[in-house]
Amino acid sequence: MSSSLPPLSLSILGVEPLDEFIKEIADFIHHMIMSRPDIPGNVEVEAKIGLIRERGGGRLLLPVLVETILTPDSIDCRFESNMTAVRLKKALCKRPLTSLTRLYMKKAQHKHFNTLLNKLKISSSQPGYASSSPLDYHHLYLVDTFYASETNDREKIRVTRDEKTGNVLECMKKIRLGDLNVYSPKRMADWRVSVNLEVPVSHPVGSSTHTRKKDRMSYAHEEFNIDLTQVTSTNSSNTPEILHELEVEIARPALLLSTAAKRGDMNASEHERNAFDELIRAFVNNARILVRNASDSWH
Amino acid sequence: MSSSLPPLSLSILGVEPLDEFIKEIADFIHHMIMSRPDIPGNVEVEAKIGLIRERGGGRLLLPVLVETILTPDSIDCRFESNMTAVRLKKALCKRPLTSLTRLYMKKAQHKHFNTLLNKLKISSSQPGYASSSPLDYHHLYLVDTFYASETNDREKIRVTRDEKTGNVLECMKKIRLGDLNVYSPKRMADWRVSVNLEVPVSHPVGSSTHTRKKDRMSYAHEEFNIDLTQVTSTNSSNTPEILHELEVEIARPALLLSTAAKRGDMNASEHERNAFDELIRAFVNNARILVRNASDSWH
Repeated sequence: MSSSLPPLSLSILGVEPLDEFIKEIADFIHHMIMSRPDIPGNVEVEAKIGLIRERGGGRLLLPVLVETILTPDSIDCRFESNMTAVRLKKALCKRPLTSLTRLYMKKAQHKHFNTLLNKLKISSSQPGYASSSPLDYHHLYLVDTFYASETNDREKIRVTRDEKTGNVLECMKKIRLGDLNVYSPKRMADWRVSVNLEVPVSHPVGSSTHTRKKDRMSYAHEEFNIDLTQVTSTNSSNTPEILHELEVEIARPALLLSTAAKRGDMNASEHERNAFDELIRAFVNNARILVRNASDSWH
Repeated sequence: MSSSLPPLSLSILGVEPLDEFIKEIADFIHHMIMSRPDIPGNVEVEAKIGLIRERGGGRLLLPVLVETILTPDSIDCRFESNMTAVRLKKALCKRPLTSLTRLYMKKAQHKHFNTLLNKLKISSSQPGYASSSPLDYHHLYLVDTFYASETNDREKIRVTRDEKTGNVLECMKKIRLGDLNVYSPKRMADWRVSVNLEVPVSHPVGSSTHTRKKDRMSYAHEEFNIDLTQVTSTNSSNTPEILHELEVEIARPALLLSTAAKRGDMNASEHERNAFDELIRAFVNNARILVRNASDSWH
């Protein structure tokens, strides 16, 4: 009798307790949305994969065993949304780096995620694939040019063009609303949730401060975009710097705002009332899957 | 179209990512079991509700927003499995404490959990109650007498008697295998998972070192016991000290060991292979529900 486990309830209450981690992220994003400045624009919610670094030092180390959310402004650290750094850190322990090795590694990690997402795109498009919806894919070549804002020193205006045609796709000012850092000691990378307000503006005059070329593989899945981007930055000194970024973002700002407005509203239907938390749950799940796949490949 | 959320997959992979927190606790307990000393005895796995305190100070504070598992031996702290302390800490901010207030509060918190578990016992026994199995209940009056071990200074021998009849119920030596502390900044209490080996021994001779009276309300639910205990300790100085303890433990050590032995065994059936992790999931869920109910009542 004692050797086999009888069917178990999830708990004494018969239910799984609420996921405190996902609730905290949902509360944070909801608060940022509801308390945002009254300026017309799109709210952007994204999770970037990278490293939380101590100011001027290596990766942050806290005495905890599993992922947790850092209290904002409690630790002197910065978030580096560059996956190259993650890979380099590991590799540095093993051998000296040559320029060729660096280049190889950048290509290797880019290729790793590209392969992973491409595989998923193919398998999710097979007839009879039941676990999830198909992924859509676009390869984008973009150029961002930045200008100082005339009204606020800390804000920049970004003009995005199609690299091939030169057509202006977007002209906007990004206002940072808030960030939450997620420390992930079991993985090779941490992540950060950012909430921004993107305000459309007219094309700036004057000269630009710097330029970024973006070679972006963009995968669309249901309400999310997963972007794998190689960024080549050029500043006034003309020294190009190459970064690799991986991020997941909520695809439709209008949906985000409408679900946020009805969160917990007892006059709305149960589906509408819970839609915001459902959206954030899938968003967090996707970020976790990305950061864990980074780990699997790089251990 | 954009105002209503279409049905969402759980993630790009169509599944919920593994719960890192529960996996860590399961790995820890499994490791403690598989590497235990080769002495016949029962493995006890329990979660106690209490406070993680800095050595000689107040409750531990870490710069994180949600529950996480502390790295063992990384912080100079101790775990206090006394719920009175939790309640007192909150109350201290509001008003000076008299002996009468203290007594009232001890009774109040004891009563709170007693009421909560009794309600659950009654509702779970109603015909048609679908969420979970019925709770069983016993009120136990026990006396523990402790003796020094002849073979090891650090080990104690515990003799447990029925307070009314004086009959010896158990004579055993408890060997601590390991603990994990769970820091829970959103709640009024933290918790600790302990794994011990309980070895039956013959009744010791000589005089005892101290005595504890236990007034225990024990609720049994499926594979778990939830014990709400008022402990009155008397040491050689004859000053009685009253503590209140709340803990959940895995009820059947034999089941625990048999599921642990088959964890991940590809020759076992899928049900057997996953039984250990299922058992630990329900155990963690129950501990979380207890610590969160403490919070709801005491905020």
